[in-house]
Amino acid sequence: MSRARRVAWLLALASPAAWAVGTHADPVAPVILGVTTILFLAVLGRHLALWLGQPSVLGELVMGMLLGNIGYWLQLDFLIVLREGPGIFAMIEHSFEGVDMTRAARDVLGAEAGPVLDILRGAHGVVLLQMAHALDVMSRYGVIFLLFLVGLETSLDELRRVGGASLRVAVTGLLLPFVLGFAALRVVLPDLSVNTDLFVAAALGATSVGITARVLRELGRQHSREAHIILGAAVIDDVLGLLLLTIVSGIVVSGSVAPGELVTTVALAVGFIWAALRLGPLLVHGLVRLVRRLDEVEAKMLVSFLFVMLLSWAASLVGLATIVGAFAAGVILHEGYFDAWHTRDRRPIAIKELIQPLEVVMVPIFFVLMGIQVKLDTLAEPRTLLVALALTAAAIAGKLLSGLLAGLPGWRWLSVGLGMLPRGEVGLIFASIGSTLGVIDDALFGAVVLMVIVTTLLAPPLLKWSMGRFGTTA
Amino acid sequence: MSRARRVAWLLALASPAAWAVGTHADPVAPVILGVTTILFLAVLGRHLALWLGQPSVLGELVMGMLLGNIGYWLQLDFLIVLREGPGIFAMIEHSFEGVDMTRAARDVLGAEAGPVLDILRGAHGVVLLQMAHALDVMSRYGVIFLLFLVGLETSLDELRRVGGASLRVAVTGLLLPFVLGFAALRVVLPDLSVNTDLFVAAALGATSVGITARVLRELGRQHSREAHIILGAAVIDDVLGLLLLTIVSGIVVSGSVAPGELVTTVALAVGFIWAALRLGPLLVHGLVRLVRRLDEVEAKMLVSFLFVMLLSWAASLVGLATIVGAFAAGVILHEGYFDAWHTRDRRPIAIKELIQPLEVVMVPIFFVLMGIQVKLDTLAEPRTLLVALALTAAAIAGKLLSGLLAGLPGWRWLSVGLGMLPRGEVGLIFASIGSTLGVIDDALFGAVVLMVIVTTLLAPPLLKWSMGRFGTTA
Repeated sequence: MSRARRVAWLLALASPAAWAVGTHADPVAPVILGVTTILFLAVLGRHLALWLGQPSVLGELVMGMLLGNIGYWLQLDFLIVLREGPGIFAMIEHSFEGVDMTRAARDVLGAEAGPVLDILRGAHGVVLLQMAHALDVMSRYGVIFLLFLVGLETSLDELRRVGGASLRVAVTGLLLPFVLGFAALRVVLPDLSVNTDLFVAAALGATSVGITARVLRELGRQHSREAHIILGAAVIDDVLGLLLLTIVSGIVVSGSVAPGELVTTVALAVGFIWAALRLGPLLVHGLVRLVRRLDEVEAKMLVSFLFVMLLSWAASLVGLATIVGAFAAGVILHEGYFDAWHTRDRRPIAIKELIQPLEVVMVPIFFVLMGIQVKLDTLAEPRTLLVALALTAAAIAGKLLSGLLAGLPGWRWLSVGLGMLPRGEVGLIFASIGSTLGVIDDALFGAVVLMVIVTTLLAPPLLKWSMGRFGTTA
Repeated sequence: MSRARRVAWLLALASPAAWAVGTHADPVAPVILGVTTILFLAVLGRHLALWLGQPSVLGELVMGMLLGNIGYWLQLDFLIVLREGPGIFAMIEHSFEGVDMTRAARDVLGAEAGPVLDILRGAHGVVLLQMAHALDVMSRYGVIFLLFLVGLETSLDELRRVGGASLRVAVTGLLLPFVLGFAALRVVLPDLSVNTDLFVAAALGATSVGITARVLRELGRQHSREAHIILGAAVIDDVLGLLLLTIVSGIVVSGSVAPGELVTTVALAVGFIWAALRLGPLLVHGLVRLVRRLDEVEAKMLVSFLFVMLLSWAASLVGLATIVGAFAAGVILHEGYFDAWHTRDRRPIAIKELIQPLEVVMVPIFFVLMGIQVKLDTLAEPRTLLVALALTAAAIAGKLLSGLLAGLPGWRWLSVGLGMLPRGEVGLIFASIGSTLGVIDDALFGAVVLMVIVTTLLAPPLLKWSMGRFGTTA
């Protein structure tokens, strides 16, 4: 290769880095810049939320919303690409199926098609897409780790021990918002497809109990009967919520609400969980044998990572969401598999401690990306705002009413209902899956995020008031 | 190639597309499959190496070499894309600067251009590209975490305390292989550019001391004078090796060996390190203030991640390798910044424990990818094999001779030289940077990997023999 050619090559390789001002050509530098910037802003949002006494997830969401909308207003390429991420993905999907790129862009991105295509065709198009892809992959890995950790904290024995009150609250707390939300959508937007109604309604159900648990601890009521009912119901909610997601997305993918398809989807989900519970332990034992010469950190980390990823992928293979597999992996895996590494004189390193660092970095990226994709201008339309309000009302009313089944004296059921209010991550994950599947559009996505924000904002102060006003049961 | 076609290419990087193996469209599922498969094979290679009593890095490298070459032989698309990864990324970026794609492919990939383009244009081209991109990003993050951990274990005080013997061994142990390797290349391949010679020679210098440290522990000689000299020299080697890399890549990027450029590069490197040492602590303090409301794991993890990434990116910004920044971040960061979280009754969670899980997953991916990119057919050419042998001889002779300066009685200097033999990760990282910069071609890359493998294989048995034969100094 001639010297001139080599220099030309070198310049070509350095181009993404040159965009990042450097002359040295580590191709990962621009990706690092993008990921680190988003993570830094997530931490900033979280800090501000905690400073205002709000849950940290709210800080990340709102920071994302500010970024996405201010970025759009200021026409910042990086933020526009992230904001239109799902649309850009859908556009590419179409164009790879043979649709002309410009037409595909117009179909999916509407008025944004022109500006977005210009950005992608511009000097930094490659870099921006590399950043967007890296952030997208990281946020999706983050959601998988999050559900794995939720699964780790869910024990089957505990699920069996959970009282009848928790079970009643969980089931009604999932179904009522679903039914109310579905009805509200049919009334307000009757021309939407049933698939969309189902998906959005399903996103209203699942409780994010972390926020409530913290409030209960703050109030010193974590040992009350109310607290036990709420926490038990939340655990069941995780499982039922994933089942509901599975059914609803099965319907959406098959494209019909035929009873046959429904039975197939449920059978597949049940079959997957059954197979995971039966074969999972054998798989873990096999992996543990493979790492038996490594030290404790390496062994636990590699087995956990491989196992959660294998189950997530297997879930996707049979048509379920990856998070169903991740959750199942968490339920199955426990420290007992690693007894060979545990010695009397050293504290064992818990699986949770090893996966948490990954979650700490990747989950905030997910929340900020979700916020960035909320288009405030769509929410400014009266009809969309009406939908958002209707969904929020359905989400609140459904959970509150479920408290009635807790069987507590006087008005104390209200505390249970209020404790179940916050939606947080699970609702968002549902909405993002729906958006990826193409059934939830920008306006509805924004409405779901608004519902998450409102329920999460309302729960802590109302729960404090209610427990103070009506007392708790020993 | 039409403009639309090129945009389709570009978008391929960010597309979740319709390639999902299942019907359910979680776009991350195929990426998970690719990453998990590579990681699983890495663990398998590591297991086999340990079973054979060899260092685990060898297992990962050799597993990668088998995968890449068998995959090429069997024409497995996934492995071919990984094998040609650096070339493919260069090709795509190049084509966006206006070069016709087919010509760009021919320029970079040579005879492989046709088959590779066919694969990328095929049904799974988008997925394969995404898998390759995700693996590439992860392996590069892995290298950054690796150097950060090396930096964490390097204290400036320790560097100052290290004895004169270590310093002499380190300096000669870095310079002799460099000089001998450079001379060998000029003799064997006189038509190579001086830039290439410099880069390859620099890859011969840095010691990977982990392997030696384990052997010393096994032999119960970790408190001997030989052990102290070796370990001290290895620490200095890390710093000097990075400085050498900085100078050499500075020369390559500027395209000349002009004394002016050299001075600029060294000044830039020294300036960066000085600024990092001065401003780094302020930055850490700022970040710590930002996370003061979070718990210990979140606070330490987020500060560490943001700090190492900011410094890596800053290094790239001033034209240094990202790993120089990562190493500096490790040297600067310590537990003292997080005293606010440390309580008397709970063991603090060390920064190392938080970053290690990431390293455990990502670094094996780096080694397997390095192995996959070794093209054994290029090594089968007599001239390349001769180069590989000459480089290995230079690498061994240089380190052995450096032992002479340890000032030990009789033949004991030999143990010091042998302890410095294994190259492992640092040599590989250099080679991969050279490959990214376009100065190290396939044949030379293979030769460097062979040098790493041979030195790493030889060191443990020879060190055991030498310490047994000549004894050690108290």
